[in-house]
Amino acid sequence: MSTLIANIGELVTNEPAPGRDGGPLGIVRDAAVLIEHGRVAWVCRAADAPAATAAAPHRTVATGGSAHGAPAVRDGSMNSDATRGTSEVEVVDAGGRAVIPGFVDSHTHLVFGGDRADEFSARMAGRRYEAGGIRSTVAATRAASDDELGARLAGFVGELHAQGTTTFEVKSGYGLSVADEARLVRLAGEVTDEVTFLGAHVVPAEYADAPDAYVDLVVGEMLTACAPHARWVDAFCERGAFTPEQSRRVLEAGAAAGLGIRLHGNQLGEGDGVRLAVELSAASVDHCTYLSAADIAALATSATVATLLPGVEFSTRQPYPDARRLLDAGVTVALASDCNPGSSFTSSMPFCIAVAVRDMGMTPAEAVWASTAGGAAALRRTDVGAIRPGARADLALLDAPSHVHLAYRPGVPLVARVWKEGEVIAER
Amino acid sequence: MSTLIANIGELVTNEPAPGRDGGPLGIVRDAAVLIEHGRVAWVCRAADAPAATAAAPHRTVATGGSAHGAPAVRDGSMNSDATRGTSEVEVVDAGGRAVIPGFVDSHTHLVFGGDRADEFSARMAGRRYEAGGIRSTVAATRAASDDELGARLAGFVGELHAQGTTTFEVKSGYGLSVADEARLVRLAGEVTDEVTFLGAHVVPAEYADAPDAYVDLVVGEMLTACAPHARWVDAFCERGAFTPEQSRRVLEAGAAAGLGIRLHGNQLGEGDGVRLAVELSAASVDHCTYLSAADIAALATSATVATLLPGVEFSTRQPYPDARRLLDAGVTVALASDCNPGSSFTSSMPFCIAVAVRDMGMTPAEAVWASTAGGAAALRRTDVGAIRPGARADLALLDAPSHVHLAYRPGVPLVARVWKEGEVIAER
Ligand SMILES: [Zn+2]
Ligand SMILES: [Zn+2]
Repeated sequence: MSTLIANIGELVTNEPAPGRDGGPLGIVRDAAVLIEHGRVAWVCRAADAPAATAAAPHRTVATGGSAHGAPAVRDGSMNSDATRGTSEVEVVDAGGRAVIPGFVDSHTHLVFGGDRADEFSARMAGRRYEAGGIRSTVAATRAASDDELGARLAGFVGELHAQGTTTFEVKSGYGLSVADEARLVRLAGEVTDEVTFLGAHVVPAEYADAPDAYVDLVVGEMLTACAPHARWVDAFCERGAFTPEQSRRVLEAGAAAGLGIRLHGNQLGEGDGVRLAVELSAASVDHCTYLSAADIAALATSATVATLLPGVEFSTRQPYPDARRLLDAGVTVALASDCNPGSSFTSSMPFCIAVAVRDMGMTPAEAVWASTAGGAAALRRTDVGAIRPGARADLALLDAPSHVHLAYRPGVPLVARVWKEGEVIAER
Repeated sequence: MSTLIANIGELVTNEPAPGRDGGPLGIVRDAAVLIEHGRVAWVCRAADAPAATAAAPHRTVATGGSAHGAPAVRDGSMNSDATRGTSEVEVVDAGGRAVIPGFVDSHTHLVFGGDRADEFSARMAGRRYEAGGIRSTVAATRAASDDELGARLAGFVGELHAQGTTTFEVKSGYGLSVADEARLVRLAGEVTDEVTFLGAHVVPAEYADAPDAYVDLVVGEMLTACAPHARWVDAFCERGAFTPEQSRRVLEAGAAAGLGIRLHGNQLGEGDGVRLAVELSAASVDHCTYLSAADIAALATSATVATLLPGVEFSTRQPYPDARRLLDAGVTVALASDCNPGSSFTSSMPFCIAVAVRDMGMTPAEAVWASTAGGAAALRRTDVGAIRPGARADLALLDAPSHVHLAYRPGVPLVARVWKEGEVIAER
């Protein structure tokens, strides 16, 4: 079974080409996309689609709306041998609405127990909250069963899909013991290939007086237990977490164990995180809230993506990173949710886009690119984040005529239907 | 058919009482609510529910999740004569999740044609956009057929319902001719009882040189045509729109025609809007971004609600109103979306709550109250905005254990099921 998405008013391909607009978005208007065997088979202007695709539909299914609030449009299926020899093609009428690549959320922490709603409320009221912090989530996570953590994780995966995210990374980092970190990377691996070992999230309470001994554990037994289930190694390089030297030990050990490198850095102040990430050719350095001119220059000439996390600054009332400065310097920027119960409990890439446009100086086009192609770059993936022949058929149909509406209509659930590898994984 | 919503982890009633917490939210934990004939019949702790409600369910329906990501919970129905003599009661198991009153959005502009995505993009990029403004929406609205406007409006109503809004006001104001304003109030009246005549939105282009002549039209023929279809009269009292004297003429004429008074004021600078609203005992004065100490004192001793519209400041990058200052002075505060294609194209009350908590100094409890009971007060309604015996059975079940999550999880669609007058109007 193949799927033809027809009557797309605005198709964001992330493949600039002559005759396309939207700069890096490579927009095709009045477009059609054919999906075969879970991959994009072709992309074209509707007028250029094979004649067969104009055949009358045999089956009618409401898709729930159109760009202009008109009555529900029609889906159908047809038999055709004009469409590259496939025997049946399901035709989906996008009703003039926009289709974008599925979001690639390159930074989440979704395996955990408990929540920190009380800590959030206290912070919003300007009160101290002594019982909070990552360690409280570590305690709740250790106390939770595999089934509890897995059910919670499955709920978040449903949220991600419903909001248009088709590829996502998940970090460990709330176990902080050999057995618990191994449990978290294994659970994460049940829902994604993009698993990150973050034993170096914080120093757990039991090692509070011996942080270097904890790093010994991370680079030793813990890494051995986790590396087979992970693709990436990460460390939180920040005052209160790990020093640049400790972070370097963790990342180099992870790389030696075959893992790719990513890093949390420069969240709370200028520091050595970006420098270290660039030196080690990390795929991404995440947060980048406080950057020196030298940091930006280093990023601009590196293969390291700057991943910005607007949900964090929104939820902690911190100043936002200056995406405009990074983009103007030629740095590759990604947006991600950092979904976690402490500093950013949003799983919504559309929300991140809206905040990035309002408060970080991004245009809607830059923010949409950063949430799709940018996230793919941060995960060093070439099969997702763009709609081009051969790419994985991960797409989101919006209840809007343009990608601009993701910023223009903040908070409104605009994702109408989501395909991952050609299968519908969410629908309203 | 009656409905019993059982196993509610946190019920926000907006009815403070001994033994309830959450301040004005009047929270009941482990609660149950019985709905009969579209009204709330009773509210109690689950332990106090009539014995019959513990009977085994006859019918099982998944409700889609629980507060802690556990597998879907069960719904059922049962026959019972212990439940106040009704013959059948549908039992909905809330799975420990939170239930709140349906949102009351007291300020929207949902009857219009076209959109202003290009103007939004230009504004976000810091560019001037000459073709924009309210007048461009007026032109698109006048050019649209009734069917087009009605279909568009129906789409927005679907959005409101899906996001938990069960009562909403709709203003005219994009017609600005007798025939077009009459058309807009009539269309609005097809979807809500809370219709506001806003002929005094801006001076239309054809009266640019004769604003007082336009006011003559508004208080004359236009009011005569619109008053029978409206409950409220409103005016935009601001530099660039209408003077306090012109606004007063419009509001007094509307009141004489039997309409209640509301006012747009103090959005772009301090001015006479609040003073005028209080003097005329307006139900609400909306925006309140720039207030003098005298304005706040006047509001605090008045029956006029201050309605704040966080979507406007978010979407225009203006400074936010200081809700904390108003609340501390004892002013009744409402939150509303101001959903319109120019300055705030969000229809999401959860989004407004999240921004109000982050940027306007409200606690999550204050923001949720302002979005429900506050909105009801701004519409002078006592039948909605609270969950108490006799109130209209308008409720929203959240995919979260607490109302706090509406701010703690910004952008995430948390509304799982919505009842209006006891009927399910939206469900995920
Ligand atoms: Zn993180
Ligand atoms: Zn308004």
